[in-house]
Amino acid sequence: MGLIGGSFALALRPRVRRLIGVDPNALARRLAIRRRAVHEATDSLARLARCDAVLVAAPQSKVPAVCVRAARWMRPGATLFEVASVKGPIAEKLQSIPRHVNLISAHPMAGTEHAGMANASARLFKGRPLVLIPVRVADRSALALAREFAAAIGAQERWMLETARHDDQAARLIHLPHLIAYALASLEADRSLAGPSYRGATRVARSLPRMVAEMLHANRAALRRSLPGFTRALRRLARLLDSPARLEAALDAVRKALQE
Amino acid sequence: MGLIGGSFALALRPRVRRLIGVDPNALARRLAIRRRAVHEATDSLARLARCDAVLVAAPQSKVPAVCVRAARWMRPGATLFEVASVKGPIAEKLQSIPRHVNLISAHPMAGTEHAGMANASARLFKGRPLVLIPVRVADRSALALAREFAAAIGAQERWMLETARHDDQAARLIHLPHLIAYALASLEADRSLAGPSYRGATRVARSLPRMVAEMLHANRAALRRSLPGFTRALRRLARLLDSPARLEAALDAVRKALQE
Repeated sequence: MGLIGGSFALALRPRVRRLIGVDPNALARRLAIRRRAVHEATDSLARLARCDAVLVAAPQSKVPAVCVRAARWMRPGATLFEVASVKGPIAEKLQSIPRHVNLISAHPMAGTEHAGMANASARLFKGRPLVLIPVRVADRSALALAREFAAAIGAQERWMLETARHDDQAARLIHLPHLIAYALASLEADRSLAGPSYRGATRVARSLPRMVAEMLHANRAALRRSLPGFTRALRRLARLLDSPARLEAALDAVRKALQE
Repeated sequence: MGLIGGSFALALRPRVRRLIGVDPNALARRLAIRRRAVHEATDSLARLARCDAVLVAAPQSKVPAVCVRAARWMRPGATLFEVASVKGPIAEKLQSIPRHVNLISAHPMAGTEHAGMANASARLFKGRPLVLIPVRVADRSALALAREFAAAIGAQERWMLETARHDDQAARLIHLPHLIAYALASLEADRSLAGPSYRGATRVARSLPRMVAEMLHANRAALRRSLPGFTRALRRLARLLDSPARLEAALDAVRKALQE
């Protein structure tokens, strides 16, 4: 029950019969109760035996193992959601999840640089895309559940069939922006003079380093593929700096693409 | 009276005896009156004859000419402020400003991607740094006026003596982040999946292309000097992608520097 799991809990609790939060961290459990994010909080996976749906929100490297352990307790026909940021590296490990449960990989395109249940918000996913990948769906009720799930948190459901496509888009839309933010923030500068463009460009570099490192490492292949295109684009713009008119035309083309 | 001039007007109007807005654009003048940003709006520079202080907020390439024309109307001992984003390229031209006025170059480290008086806000400069460079100050009352000016808009005054230092910091804190945002936004991606990291990283690429092109062109020397350091930092981080532990250490060092 960190930022993501806690935000799911806060958004879902008013819309489900009973929401059980499982976390080994006693502080997170106390906070989840105090913030009314869950009906009950426990450190025991045994409570999953009564659930129709289970959502695993854990650091990237821990997702497969937590999913396998959670699924052992789940009843046949129940549905397991995992929300890791990168899908390819965990795809094989997810195959070892006990086969009596449905498995849907999801990725809410939302988050902030502030971690933990304390920063969770019921509105975090509001209006944001929620990527849904049906990894193993024995009965179609699991798909209906996923759609209800997206609606309940106010997200826009975006179904995908291929994890590779997801990881490629995540590299361009999430992981490359993170790497760039850290590179920019690592340069010498008098930050006491910083305005909104610098603050905005380096915001995500204030995230928890371990979380980001695991995420970037997991998607390193797609991330590295995206880098040459970026540095080429940067060099091309740098070459246009001598000609305001040609530079303006290039910037205008980018702006139009953003507004499409 | 665009975003910057309009925001200055909105912030200053309640704190001065009389505020006159000069703009050749009739729409901007009407809007300034409707929003109560100024006491009166005109297209005639002749009204500057009665002012103690004049603020020129114009596109980068027009600042020197507008300053020279404005100063001709100003009375001896009055103070002229200009708020261009880049100071070096206009330094020589500013020398031709009639010598009976004080001249202070200023740069509010604030702005948004939305242009025009319609998007101006009295709170735009609140808590933001305001760089102040005393270019030509005949009497010290001009310095006191500049301090009052910073206080009136709620900004933190940051005095500098060298335009080169200003432009170097502006390249790192404003112009490089803009160039990077456009390069990132120019890459192919399914933007319907974009979350906050992509939106934040590309926000400034929605600015008016002509304004940005003029600004980047004007500071191209310092901007180009800042590029190799950035691409080196990016390559260094990319090399660490194979080792989550070393990557985490590098990200942690960046985060700590940001928090200092």
